Parts: sequence; C-alpha cells; structure tokens
Amino acid sequence: DLPLALIAGPCQLESRDHAVEMASALKEIAARLGIGLVYKTSFDKANRTSARGARGLGLEASLPIFADIRSSLGLPVLTDIHDISQCAPVAQAVDILQIPAFLCRQTDLLIAAAETGRVVNVKKGQFLAPWDMKNVVEKITGAGNAKVLVTERGASFGYNTLVSDMRALPELAKTGAPVIFDATHSVQQPGGQGTSSGGQREFVPVLARAAVAVGIAGVFIETHQDPDHAPSDGPNMIALKDLEPLLTKLMAFDRLAKS
Amino acid sequence: DLPLALIAGPCQLESRDHAVEMASALKEIAARLGIGLVYKTSFDKANRTSARGARGLGLEASLPIFADIRSSLGLPVLTDIHDISQCAPVAQAVDILQIPAFLCRQTDLLIAAAETGRVVNVKKGQFLAPWDMKNVVEKITGAGNAKVLVTERGASFGYNTLVSDMRALPELAKTGAPVIFDATHSVQQPGGQGTSSGGQREFVPVLARAAVAVGIAGVFIETHQDPDHAPSDGPNMIALKDLEPLLTKLMAFDRLAKS
Amino acid sequence: DLPLALIAGPCQLESRDHAVEMASALKEIAARLGIGLVYKTSFDKANRTSARGARGLGLEASLPIFADIRSSLGLPVLTDIHDISQCAPVAQAVDILQIPAFLCRQTDLLIAAAETGRVVNVKKGQFLAPWDMKNVVEKITGAGNAKVLVTERGASFGYNTLVSDMRALPELAKTGAPVIFDATHSVQQPGGQGTSSGGQREFVPVLARAAVAVGIAGVFIETHQDPDHAPSDGPNMIALKDLEPLLTKLMAFDRLAKS
Amino acid sequence: DLPLALIAGPCQLESRDHAVEMASALKEIAARLGIGLVYKTSFDKANRTSARGARGLGLEASLPIFADIRSSLGLPVLTDIHDISQCAPVAQAVDILQIPAFLCRQTDLLIAAAETGRVVNVKKGQFLAPWDMKNVVEKITGAGNAKVLVTERGASFGYNTLVSDMRALPELAKTGAPVIFDATHSVQQPGGQGTSSGGQREFVPVLARAAVAVGIAGVFIETHQDPDHAPSDGPNMIALKDLEPLLTKLMAFDRLAKS
Repeated sequence: DLPLALIAGPCQLESRDHAVEMASALKEIAARLGIGLVYKTSFDKANRTSARGARGLGLEASLPIFADIRSSLGLPVLTDIHDISQCAPVAQAVDILQIPAFLCRQTDLLIAAAETGRVVNVKKGQFLAPWDMKNVVEKITGAGNAKVLVTERGASFGYNTLVSDMRALPELAKTGAPVIFDATHSVQQPGGQGTSSGGQREFVPVLARAAVAVGIAGVFIETHQDPDHAPSDGPNMIALKDLEPLLTKLMAFDRLAKS
Repeated sequence: DLPLALIAGPCQLESRDHAVEMASALKEIAARLGIGLVYKTSFDKANRTSARGARGLGLEASLPIFADIRSSLGLPVLTDIHDISQCAPVAQAVDILQIPAFLCRQTDLLIAAAETGRVVNVKKGQFLAPWDMKNVVEKITGAGNAKVLVTERGASFGYNTLVSDMRALPELAKTGAPVIFDATHSVQQPGGQGTSSGGQREFVPVLARAAVAVGIAGVFIETHQDPDHAPSDGPNMIALKDLEPLLTKLMAFDRLAKS
Repeated sequence: DLPLALIAGPCQLESRDHAVEMASALKEIAARLGIGLVYKTSFDKANRTSARGARGLGLEASLPIFADIRSSLGLPVLTDIHDISQCAPVAQAVDILQIPAFLCRQTDLLIAAAETGRVVNVKKGQFLAPWDMKNVVEKITGAGNAKVLVTERGASFGYNTLVSDMRALPELAKTGAPVIFDATHSVQQPGGQGTSSGGQREFVPVLARAAVAVGIAGVFIETHQDPDHAPSDGPNMIALKDLEPLLTKLMAFDRLAKS
Repeated sequence: DLPLALIAGPCQLESRDHAVEMASALKEIAARLGIGLVYKTSFDKANRTSARGARGLGLEASLPIFADIRSSLGLPVLTDIHDISQCAPVAQAVDILQIPAFLCRQTDLLIAAAETGRVVNVKKGQFLAPWDMKNVVEKITGAGNAKVLVTERGASFGYNTLVSDMRALPELAKTGAPVIFDATHSVQQPGGQGTSSGGQREFVPVLARAAVAVGIAGVFIETHQDPDHAPSDGPNMIALKDLEPLLTKLMAFDRLAKS
C-alpha cells in the first residue's frame, strides 16, 4: 500500500497567473508534507447547470499553460475532457485525462482516452452502482491501457443531493484500479441554487477523513485562495489556507489505515 | 391540448429490412388508431453497460435508411446523438434529434443540436431534479431553437433501480416544452444484469397509464417483434403484438385527462 | 373489480361539532357522486415531528364521537391506533383500525388489531419495499383476520422527501388485500418545515389520478374546510370545496381503468 | 472528548447461559483493551420481517438475567423497548433504554422512557433526516431527562438497502447528545431475504472505521460466537473472535480523531 496521494487545484483554469500561483502554493505545501501531488484544473466547464455559468479559458489557451506547469514546476497535471476530439491534443499537454462522472458510460470517449496511452481517471457516475464500474474499467483496459484510476464522488440521493457510500471504496477497489475519493464534488448539491449547484464545504474534511480511514490511494480536493468568489464550485471548494492542516490529519489517518 | 402522440420503434437499428418492417407495422397500427407517430431507432448505442454489448449499424450505414423511412413511408424519424460532430449530418436525415439522459447537461452538444434547427428532444438525466430541466431547455432555446421536447425516464433510486416520480410531469411542463413520458427506459434496471441492464416489461403499461392520466403530450415506447432476442433493451421493450391494445387504452385515458 | 371507494376526513378530530360538520358534508358529496365513503379522523397524532405539535382530542373524548358519527350519520369510521392497549376499546367504536406507516412492522400491534376482528388498514412504511408487505399482511391473516387493506403512502427518497412508485400498486395487490392510495401523505415533506412537516397540496390530484389509472380499490384523501389553519397536515390536505370535482374526475378514471 | 465507548452483545437474549458467556467474553476483551463496555441484548424482537422469525426470551424471563449480568459481572446493560408499558419494569433492570429506529417518532414512548430517569438511546429512523433528530431529542429532554444518546444506523436508499451518510454524525452532534454509530444495522439489507433481512458483515469494519475517523462517542456492534446460526441479524453480526482486532484498530483511529 503506497501512501496517500493528492489531486488538488482550483476547479477552473482562470488565467496563467492564477494557475501558476495556485500550483506553486500547492507544490510548497506538498513538499513540506511529503505527499505526492497532481495538479488538477479544468480548461472547460462543459456541463454547467446553466448556460450562463462561466466555462473557463478553453482548450487552446489552456494547453500551453498546462505544459508550462509541468515543465517549470515539474508537477504532473490532470484535466477533464468531454469530447473524443479533445483526447489527443490534451494528452500532449497533461499526464492524466479525467472522464467526468456524467460521461463515464460513453464508450467511445473512454476508448479514445485510453488510446492516448495516458493515465485515465474515471469518475463514477452519480447514477451508477459501484460494482458497475468494473464494466467501465474494462472499456479502458480492453482498449489496451491498464493505467486507470477510479474516483468516487457521490451517488444520487433524492433530488439535488448526493450521498457518499463508504462501502463503494472497497467495492471499487475490486476493479483493480487505485481508488480516489473526490471530497469536493461529494459535497456538491447539484442544481441546488436554481441556476448553479450548491455545496457544503464544511463536510469536505468529514468525508475525506472517513474515506482515508477506509483506505484509498488518493484524495481529490479542489481548493482556491478565495472560494466564495471562484467562478465555479465555490460552495464546495475549501480555502487554500485550510488545506495544509487538513492534509496533515488525512496523512496521519492514512498511515494508520495502511499499518 | 393536442391528443397524445406516440414515439415508437425498436431500440436499435438492426438492418434496413428490419427497420422498414417495424416502421410499416407501426404505421399501420397508428393509422388504425388515429394517433400521430414518430419512428424512433438508434444508429449507435454509445453507452452500453459493457463494451461487449452490440452497438448498432453506425452513423453512415443508418442515414440512408432514416431517409428511406421518411420518404417511402412518410414517417417522421427520431434518433439520438452522442457527439457534436453527429448533429449536422444526422439532422439532414431525421426530424427529431434526441439528447440521451446522461448527456443532458453537456452544453455544447445541446447547442450544436439546437443549431441544426431540428426539433430537439432532451431526456431528463437520472441524476437531475425535474425543476433543473428549465436550465437545460434554456440552453437550447438560448441558441435560437424553440422546438424542444422534454422526456421523463426515471430518477436514480438506490442502486440499479429507477423510480418514476409522476410529480415530475407537471414540473417539466413548467419549462413550456411538450412533455413526453418514456415508458420503456423508466422500467430499466441500470446495470442490473451484471454486464447489461435489466428491465421490468410488465410495468410499461402501469407507468404509461399513470403518466397519461396525469397529462402528457406524448408517450415513448420501444417495441420489437421479439424483445427477448433483441440486441439491446430487450427486458424492457414490449412485444409489437401487445402495442395496439395498450395504445387503445392509453388514448382513452388521454381523452379523459384532457376533457 | 368494485368501483373506487373513498376514505376521507380531516387529519385530526378537532371537536364534536367539527367532526359532525365535516362528516355530514362528506356524506352529501359521496351521496351525490355515488361513491362509497369511510370517514377518517385521528384521535391522537402520536408521532408529530415536534412535541409541541397539537395532538388531538385523545382516546376517551373521541370514542363517543366516533360512535355518534356511525349511528347518526350511518357512516363507517376509520381511525389509527398506536399502542396495543388501544385496539380493543377503539374497535368498539369504529369499523376500521389503521396501522400507521412507522408501526407497520410492530408484530404485537398488528396481531392485537387483527384479534379485534375489525378490518385492519396497514400503511406501508416509508422504509419498506412493496413486496415486503406480504409479510406484514401475513402477520394479520396469520392471527385469523382476513379483512386487511394495504395503503401506499410514499417511499423515502433522500431527506425530507417521499416519492410515489406507481409500480408499488400492482405489487401490493399481490398480497391479495385491496390496495388504497393515500394521496395526502404521499405529498408530505416529512420534517420539511423544521418543527413540522411540509406538503405539496398541488400534487394530490396528480398522484391520485395516476394511482386510479393504474387501478386501485380506494383512495385516501384528507380534507378540511380551511387546511391552512388546520392543526396538522395542513400543507397536504386539500380544501373541502375542491374535493367534489377531484372525485368526479377520479371516478371517471376508475371506470375506464376497470373497463 | 472522552475515548470511544463500546455497546456490544448478541442481537437476542437467547438463554441465561448464553448471555453470561457472551457478557463474560466481552468483559474480558474490554478489560484487555481498556474500552468502556455496555452489554446490549434484546428480550424481544418486536418487529421481525416475518411473524415466523424467532422473537427471544420475552420480558419476564429476561429481567432477572439483565439484573444478574449487572450484579455478577458489573456491566451496564442496554436493551430496547417497544411499548410504553415496558418502560418502568425494564428500567428497574437495565442502565440504558433503547428506542428502536422505527419508533423514534412515537412521542409517548419517548416520554415514558425519559420519565424512568434512565439513559435513553434513540436510534435515528431510516426515514429521518439527521437534522430532524433535534425534535426527537427535545421530546426526551422536554420530559426532564437530559441523559440522551443518539444512534445513526443508516438511511433508506432505494428498496431493501440502507446507506450510511457520514455527514449525519456531526449533524447529530448538534443535538448536544453523544453520538453512537451502529455498525451492525447500518449494513442490514431490510427484508432482503424475502422473509428475513439480509446483511453485509464484511462492511462492518469499513463503516465503523469511517465513523470513528469522523469522530463519535461510541460504536455499537452486535456480535455472536456463531453468527451464521444466530436466531436474528446473523448476516450482519460479526464473529466474536473478530471483535478484538477490530476494536484495537478502531481505538487507534479514535485516539487520532480526538487528538
């Protein structure tokens, strides 16, 4: 059992300066704590609740920034893709391609991502039972790519609410893929604010501790220097200043869980 | 209130002969009953539970068959699309573009479909509250296309199960779009057979009657001459021979609901 | 298939005068429409959300009023019981003993109710699958009483929300007991107002129409001359003045469903 | 923050000998580990899925056994009550009265339990949102008894399934009452075996670890020397021999959570 890894960053790629600043700050924290870090950010929020939500910088403007973070800071980068045509160009610029939860059953997208040879992180759909992820993983491994991560991010529970079933973590591990717990989107309240999603930031540490105690390969946490003014997922991102103490605790739980 | 319309056909486009045979049979039934008919069939099952599930004829082989059904039988045709690049070519060959439930939040796909000028039928995601469909409809109307249909097809209810909330029908009607009830996928048991989805065909008439009594614009029913040997959605398709008596009953309920 | 029956009345027994007034008004409506009527009212609201909610007149004060309604108006009376000790005295004064949904698994209460020889109406727990009601019915029939009714009143769906699964109606019918649909409590929002339950009165006709179209023995509707000022279940009771047109429509759906 | 306490024992009181044997074994384990122990057992399983399920020794036969375990072994005893009339006699013989989840809204039972002056442990209903437990706790404290425990044991999630929402633990703590996590009934599959409930014993350690990491006052674990042949809750009880290593791990998580 390898020690807990961290996938972190702001929800959206807002600008080159913002990205470099966030990535540098995260790199410092990770170095101090001795935790492996993957920088996460999205070039496009392709499924906003409303068409009026901000979508991000877009593919073309983002690729050089991704490349920059990798080369200048030496950090691996993860971003999410939404369309087959994005797989090849994005794979040039990042280390991990992420399949969004809503798209986890789209066979062609999974195969196109797999065929880039990059690591593929698939989020489990809110509508999917954990045992059904074995079919999803097989779509990727069947395309010749064994480098798959699976991420739990909550299951639909009535309307505008998700619930995190901790039994899903060992169930997902049966796929053979390392299991990531997304503590940010698990506390999302989809559509809960009418034209945007709400969130319950206060439960990020609660669910993250629970998941780490159960035993996971990595934790996914979106963070921002000022979440209340972030362009997306603000209600469920935690403040950058709160990340280090949270990680310290999670790493202690991880050592205990794996001892 | 216009009388109940019917969207029907086999889940997959299996071959030209099969399509023409099914469309002809459905046309006869619809003519006898005096119900408006749209022929539904899929050229690609893009999100099968498992990669080993049959996917259908594919886009290129299917377009001439769609065109044929429209011209030789005079039936409007509906099919579902999964990728932005499919919108324009498919719109040439069919009357209604359908957005699958998993994809109902993909902004670019909704806009690309809208921009074809064709009618767009959006299925409500299993993970979406009915009131959140107003944002989905606005993505399409905001792109300049007012010809939108919304379809209810069940909400996630625990694992491998859907539930049909009849309150969703009047709630969806608040979008201003005609509301369709998909009686076939509402009785699906997603992933319920390990590597394919199960279904409860016996509840198709139950849920269809309930929905028509509440008041809807149309009903969506997949049918097949031999559902138990159909390549997809067999467990929840009804036999062609059972369609006419079911429709007769539904039309009587519809007249009463709208009187 | 017998025609649709009606179980109706105000949630609480507020006073003798109020009870006689409501029962008389309901008797007139039922006579005009030719629908069988059972008068429903509760002598005690034993499971209010908060201890501060009004509970009703109580057992001793209520029994003579029940007897009065039966003898002077000739109406059968239904009331709910919460404790074994209530079964025998209440059975003297009413025609149907009702087991509340939360208590549907309490074996001794079911048996004590059964042993009175009265008809027993069991509400399905919000936590119970419809197929599990066969065990509940067998607890009653096993105690020698074959006169059982089963009532659907919604299933838990996330927090503070219920959903009505119309598939439950034919599933409950497999118990052999006549199936009642409770259109009032199905639209309850349990605990939804902090210290009391909310409700969605506007969906009573929606769900009642759906259930009658599926096919049921009876419908349960709580009503009040002024629901917004009723001491309990106000948000989900319909106004007495709206009952007759609703019933007229439901009876037409019932004739069609059973034709 | 006090260290984690343990409520443990077999589901049913099977016989005096069995009870003494189990209680002695648990006392030894607790002494070795230095964990506070409350012995739990039920004199009556009042809400079995089917009337044919074994119900236990009954009240009269059980009270002297409870008294015996308290006096000879010096262990505090917890048992559950189902009816107002049981509160006073049972309170003579045990230290903690437990309110079953289905009965957590029965005002008179809560008050009768409160008035005994004993500690009252209320299980949260499977149908209840965690924030609604504040009203339940107030029914007890409003009757003059401040010694209340609240227990999480899963929420309804579709049919025949429960899910444990770890956010419920801090939410329940807002009531001011110590929070217990019932790791046994949280993995129950209600009614899941037709005429009895199923269970997923393998997830007891998973959910217990998660809950302890979040931070709780105590953990509730049913155990049996031979769970597969126990008269009730066998599928979700863990074997006695597996208890000590599990507790050792949970106590380490507890120290970390409270450090």
